[in-house]
Amino acid sequence: MPSLAALSGLSLTKGHATENDFLLLADPDGARELDAAAVAALCDRRAGIGADGVVRVVRSRAFAEAAEAAAHGAEWFMDYRNADGSPAEMCGNAARLVIAFLEDEGLLSLADGEPVLLGTRGGVRSVWRSGGLYTVDMGPWGLPGGAEAVRRGFDVAVQATGLEGTRAGLRVTMPNPHTVVALPDVAELDGADLGPLVAVDPLPPEGTNVELVVPLGETTLDGETAGTVRMRVQERGAGETRSCGTGACAVAVALHAWGGQEAPRLWRVQVPGGELLVRLTDDGRALLTGPATLVARLTLR
Amino acid sequence: MPSLAALSGLSLTKGHATENDFLLLADPDGARELDAAAVAALCDRRAGIGADGVVRVVRSRAFAEAAEAAAHGAEWFMDYRNADGSPAEMCGNAARLVIAFLEDEGLLSLADGEPVLLGTRGGVRSVWRSGGLYTVDMGPWGLPGGAEAVRRGFDVAVQATGLEGTRAGLRVTMPNPHTVVALPDVAELDGADLGPLVAVDPLPPEGTNVELVVPLGETTLDGETAGTVRMRVQERGAGETRSCGTGACAVAVALHAWGGQEAPRLWRVQVPGGELLVRLTDDGRALLTGPATLVARLTLR
Repeated sequence: MPSLAALSGLSLTKGHATENDFLLLADPDGARELDAAAVAALCDRRAGIGADGVVRVVRSRAFAEAAEAAAHGAEWFMDYRNADGSPAEMCGNAARLVIAFLEDEGLLSLADGEPVLLGTRGGVRSVWRSGGLYTVDMGPWGLPGGAEAVRRGFDVAVQATGLEGTRAGLRVTMPNPHTVVALPDVAELDGADLGPLVAVDPLPPEGTNVELVVPLGETTLDGETAGTVRMRVQERGAGETRSCGTGACAVAVALHAWGGQEAPRLWRVQVPGGELLVRLTDDGRALLTGPATLVARLTLR
Repeated sequence: MPSLAALSGLSLTKGHATENDFLLLADPDGARELDAAAVAALCDRRAGIGADGVVRVVRSRAFAEAAEAAAHGAEWFMDYRNADGSPAEMCGNAARLVIAFLEDEGLLSLADGEPVLLGTRGGVRSVWRSGGLYTVDMGPWGLPGGAEAVRRGFDVAVQATGLEGTRAGLRVTMPNPHTVVALPDVAELDGADLGPLVAVDPLPPEGTNVELVVPLGETTLDGETAGTVRMRVQERGAGETRSCGTGACAVAVALHAWGGQEAPRLWRVQVPGGELLVRLTDDGRALLTGPATLVARLTLR
């Protein structure tokens, strides 16, 4: 493939965060911007290396698009592209991996719990490592249906192959659009077919991710009550995936809205690719915590 | 994943042959035999690196299973496993890649056209490089339906989603089982859905790969008449793939059988992952020629 041959000698790292996998390129001086064709060739799972996306990690002052991030004090910027080469705003799973990668490359040195600002196309995010896991401040959530939707428990009707009849969904913005649907048991969750597009009525013009969830009860985590929930997700344009960071946050927001003031603010979210932890802060932000795994360093032939 | 962590520091090469992709491990002294769990972890396309299989290339005298290959003078043996970790007999696409890999690693030095013997679980094969492409002698073919099936043009009935009615298929062994079905035009080929299992009646107890083909006419290649054929394949246990080396050979055998003595013995076989060239020798063997592309060297973290 010509666009791969043009990348001969390029060094990358492959890693994943709850099995959302990425190729990471350290480009401190902004000398190796990748075009859409190069990203698509790298992400091809058979002719290339294969990944859900490519993150070029560049110093904010060395990348024109990162001027605002630089002004806000973010030394590093994640220039993130989807597998098809299109630029993407932000990904909570990729952001965790970026910090693990910068530490691994010797480009960042963080104490446990010390936050660092990371520039993204969706704004500057604070990220930190603690106890071997990484946390991203995903910012404020929204409930587009407002208090009325929360009181009723839903604001859209959802139909998916394998689900009985029509189900009630609650819309959440993170700020990307989500629709969360609670199911009564794991058997129905496992039986759903998320291959065909899930029907959401009314469908927002920008589309929506859909999270099917089954709450599994509460436990105590470090002295605090935490809810546990199992989730499957269909992402806009990508179909079912093994993990979705904003989706996990949206699920915690919906479960907290449904449960009211008594409901936990801390949720273990079991996704097909592992487990994420979501904390809802008193001032309306979601903190996403999870693993970041670097798998291999590679050099293109 | 624990089985990946145990492989920390291991160096591999990822490559593909007509987009059938493999991870290659050079293990001259037979010191790094991989178990099924390690292979499956490496081939996981999101939590690992991702590939259709892993080939450990080992000196025949350093591997107990390769004693016969060593006795037949094959210095190198391809210890090939499928993505699920199960041992596999032989793969024409992987065999080409193995030779390119040995050359790249400095473990083999071949002149253009000089054959080398390669041990496989399916027997010793002769492989050579010429003009940048690699050729594998795939050995003798078979027509289980015999002269009667060739005279009639088919010996099994085939039904697949997207194909009109019942189609006639000719069985070919390479020595693994194939069923070749000729279609009248590319539109019907493109419209077939090879997701669901293709129905073959009678189905051999060991199952069968199914090749749907459309002959596209004849051209001249280096002064010789060559047929061109487009092919899609459903492999036993793997579903539709981008390429199948034994399948390409089976297709050439079927087209030659259908065409009789006047039919070309040389076929360009267009597969979704590229183009293969198959030559049928006068003494009943199939020679498979195609590219071998090394994509990246990698080291596990």
